[in-house]
Amino acid sequence: MAGTDTKQRIIRKGAGLMHRNGYNHTGIQEVLDMAGVPKGSFYFYFKNKEDFGLHIIDFFSDNFKKIFIRILLDESLSPLERLKKFFTALRDYFNQQNCTLGCPFGNISQEMSDQNEKFRKKLNGIFEQIREAIASILLEARDCGEMEDIRNIDDMAGFIFNGWEGALIDMKLKRSCEPLDVFIRTVFNQLLK
Amino acid sequence: MAGTDTKQRIIRKGAGLMHRNGYNHTGIQEVLDMAGVPKGSFYFYFKNKEDFGLHIIDFFSDNFKKIFIRILLDESLSPLERLKKFFTALRDYFNQQNCTLGCPFGNISQEMSDQNEKFRKKLNGIFEQIREAIASILLEARDCGEMEDIRNIDDMAGFIFNGWEGALIDMKLKRSCEPLDVFIRTVFNQLLK
Repeated sequence: MAGTDTKQRIIRKGAGLMHRNGYNHTGIQEVLDMAGVPKGSFYFYFKNKEDFGLHIIDFFSDNFKKIFIRILLDESLSPLERLKKFFTALRDYFNQQNCTLGCPFGNISQEMSDQNEKFRKKLNGIFEQIREAIASILLEARDCGEMEDIRNIDDMAGFIFNGWEGALIDMKLKRSCEPLDVFIRTVFNQLLK
Repeated sequence: MAGTDTKQRIIRKGAGLMHRNGYNHTGIQEVLDMAGVPKGSFYFYFKNKEDFGLHIIDFFSDNFKKIFIRILLDESLSPLERLKKFFTALRDYFNQQNCTLGCPFGNISQEMSDQNEKFRKKLNGIFEQIREAIASILLEARDCGEMEDIRNIDDMAGFIFNGWEGALIDMKLKRSCEPLDVFIRTVFNQLLK
């Protein structure tokens, strides 16, 4: 149990640093200092820095599912209400972070896709799952008449999710949640109706 | 003249490395080795690495205006034809790069916005100019009846440009131009009509 706790503590501290500074700029020693764990322990739990990075992506993905993807499955709301609540909850999270950091998946994708195939494939799989969850919502919304038919549901799900990722870059640039608000207004008042 | 040439050569080599590896991961010594210039020269032309980075962003911005923004001003085409040609020309550029690299502005924004205010403000200004150019096109398209009226032209211009930046992250993840094609199809067949 103590071993699992230590491993989780290293991962949590690493996740915080990697979210802020990126993968290449996160030093193992800094993570271990913050976690209060000696260096030898690191190699007991992780093969190397790459393996550690992949664990951190899984940690982000598990949290994202628990907190945000869960909203997409809440059947007490209509499909588009769920989708809007999903993006609004994310918006509120970033607002709490003073419009910094951005999406850990988007950040690491940007930084690592050209450098490391394991990262690229893992992150692509996570994006694929999110797009599929959004596509299911759109299908449901169309089938229950909550919005007009659209030509290609999968295209639209990808377009919407990519629009969100781009809005997060703009949020960091403007140091303001306004691009996220523009995204939500445009998707729900103009795109899906 | 030789001085200007040397300065430009250092900037060009630095731009290539920074586009591929990011700002923090680009070493001055590597740039100078590639440019065949001794270290002393660097500090003759640039105050420090930050100043060099800001010059590189200007270099990208000048090239972007010369090659791509120019398309938005081509009055031989209708407004939406110009906008579609602009995104298609960018798509073709990324296709030539085997769907790697991504947008230098988006990459450096992602990496540096939380770390350096000068970078954040300069990049925000560049994004603002691009959004304004797109908003002008949308106004023209609306006024000449090429598309229906939309609620808020500035919102739509921001939403579209952010959608493009997000599609570029997805392009790197998929190592495919498909997300750019989805973006172009969705914007021109579903969003603006």
